[in-house]
Amino acid sequence: MNREEILEAVKEAMPEKRFIHTLGVEKTALELADHYKVDRDQVSLAALLHDYAKYADKEAMMAVMVEQKMDPKLFTYNQELWHAPVGAYFAESKFGVTDEPVLKAIACHTTGNAAMSTMDKIIYLADYTEPNRSFPGVYKARRLSFDSLDKAMLFALSNTITFLITKRQPIFPDTFDAYNYFARLQIEGEV
Amino acid sequence: MNREEILEAVKEAMPEKRFIHTLGVEKTALELADHYKVDRDQVSLAALLHDYAKYADKEAMMAVMVEQKMDPKLFTYNQELWHAPVGAYFAESKFGVTDEPVLKAIACHTTGNAAMSTMDKIIYLADYTEPNRSFPGVYKARRLSFDSLDKAMLFALSNTITFLITKRQPIFPDTFDAYNYFARLQIEGEV
Repeated sequence: MNREEILEAVKEAMPEKRFIHTLGVEKTALELADHYKVDRDQVSLAALLHDYAKYADKEAMMAVMVEQKMDPKLFTYNQELWHAPVGAYFAESKFGVTDEPVLKAIACHTTGNAAMSTMDKIIYLADYTEPNRSFPGVYKARRLSFDSLDKAMLFALSNTITFLITKRQPIFPDTFDAYNYFARLQIEGEV
Repeated sequence: MNREEILEAVKEAMPEKRFIHTLGVEKTALELADHYKVDRDQVSLAALLHDYAKYADKEAMMAVMVEQKMDPKLFTYNQELWHAPVGAYFAESKFGVTDEPVLKAIACHTTGNAAMSTMDKIIYLADYTEPNRSFPGVYKARRLSFDSLDKAMLFALSNTITFLITKRQPIFPDTFDAYNYFARLQIEGEV
C-alpha cells in the first residue's frame, strides 16, 4: 500500500477529528524522528496506523485478542487500551506491515512499558503532544520531548497516572512498570 | 512477653517521637478494631510492633532479607520499605509472635497489597491517620476509615502514589496492585 492508500483507509476507519489527530501525530513524530535521527518512513507508518483500531467493533477486537493470544490482563482493563495491540495486529494483517519496530510502537503507544525503543517513545510522545492536544502541561511535554525523550516520558507517565488516579481508574501494570523504569533512570542520573 | 515488656523493648528501639507515633497507631487501631469487631489483642500487638525495625541497622536488615528469602525486589526499592517485612520477622524471632495474621499485618503496613485482611487494613490506616499525623486529607482519611476500610484504603493509596509521583520516586509494585484492587472494588460497587 502506498501513502495515499494508507491515508484513505485510515480516514475511513475513524471520525474526522481523530484523522486530524492522526496527521498531527505524524507531523510531531517526524519532527522528533529528525531530531533524534530515527528512520522517517518507519515513524510515519507507525504514526498513521497507531489509532487505526480505535473505532473497531468491540467483539472484533476481543476476537483478535483471543486468537492472537494477547495478554489476557487486557480484558480486565479499560477497553480504551485494546486498540493499541489490536491496531498492531491490523497493521500487519490488513496493511501488510512486517516491520517489527513499527508494530511494536503501535502496540505500546497507549500504555507504554519498561522496554521502549526510541521509536516507541517518539510515537507515545507525539500522540501526547501533537498540535491539536490541549491540557495543562502540554507545552512542557512538548519542550521536554525535544530535550530528552526519557525526561518527557517520565513527565507524561507521571501526569497520566496521576490523572487516572484522580478518576480512581485501574491502571494497566505496563504503565506502572514504565513509570518505575523512567523514575529510576532519573534517580540514576541517566535522564 | 507481657505488654510492659513489649512497650519497653519497642521504646528502646526508636526515638521518642516514633514511640509516640506507635502509641497513636495502637490507639487508632483499637478504635477501628472495636468498630469493625476485630480481635483487640491481635490489633494491639501488630500496632505496637509495626515500626520496631524502623531504626534497625541497614546491614542487619539486608542480612535478614537474604536469609529469610524475602522478595528480592525489595533491595531495588527505597530502604524505607524494608522495615515492614523485617519487622514481621523480628516480631517472630525476638518477641515470639507466631500469630500469622499479626505478622502479615506488620509485613504489609507500608506497601499494602491486593490481598489485605481487615486487620491489615486497620494497621495500614491507623498508621496513616493516628492522632499525631498531619497532612492534607488526614481528616477525610480518618472519617473514611470508620465509614469503609476499603474506601479509606483507596483514598490513602491514591494520595500516597500521587505524592510519590510528585517526587518522581519509584513505587513498589505491591502498592500499585493494592491501588488497582481497591479501584476495581469501587467500580464494581463493592466499596
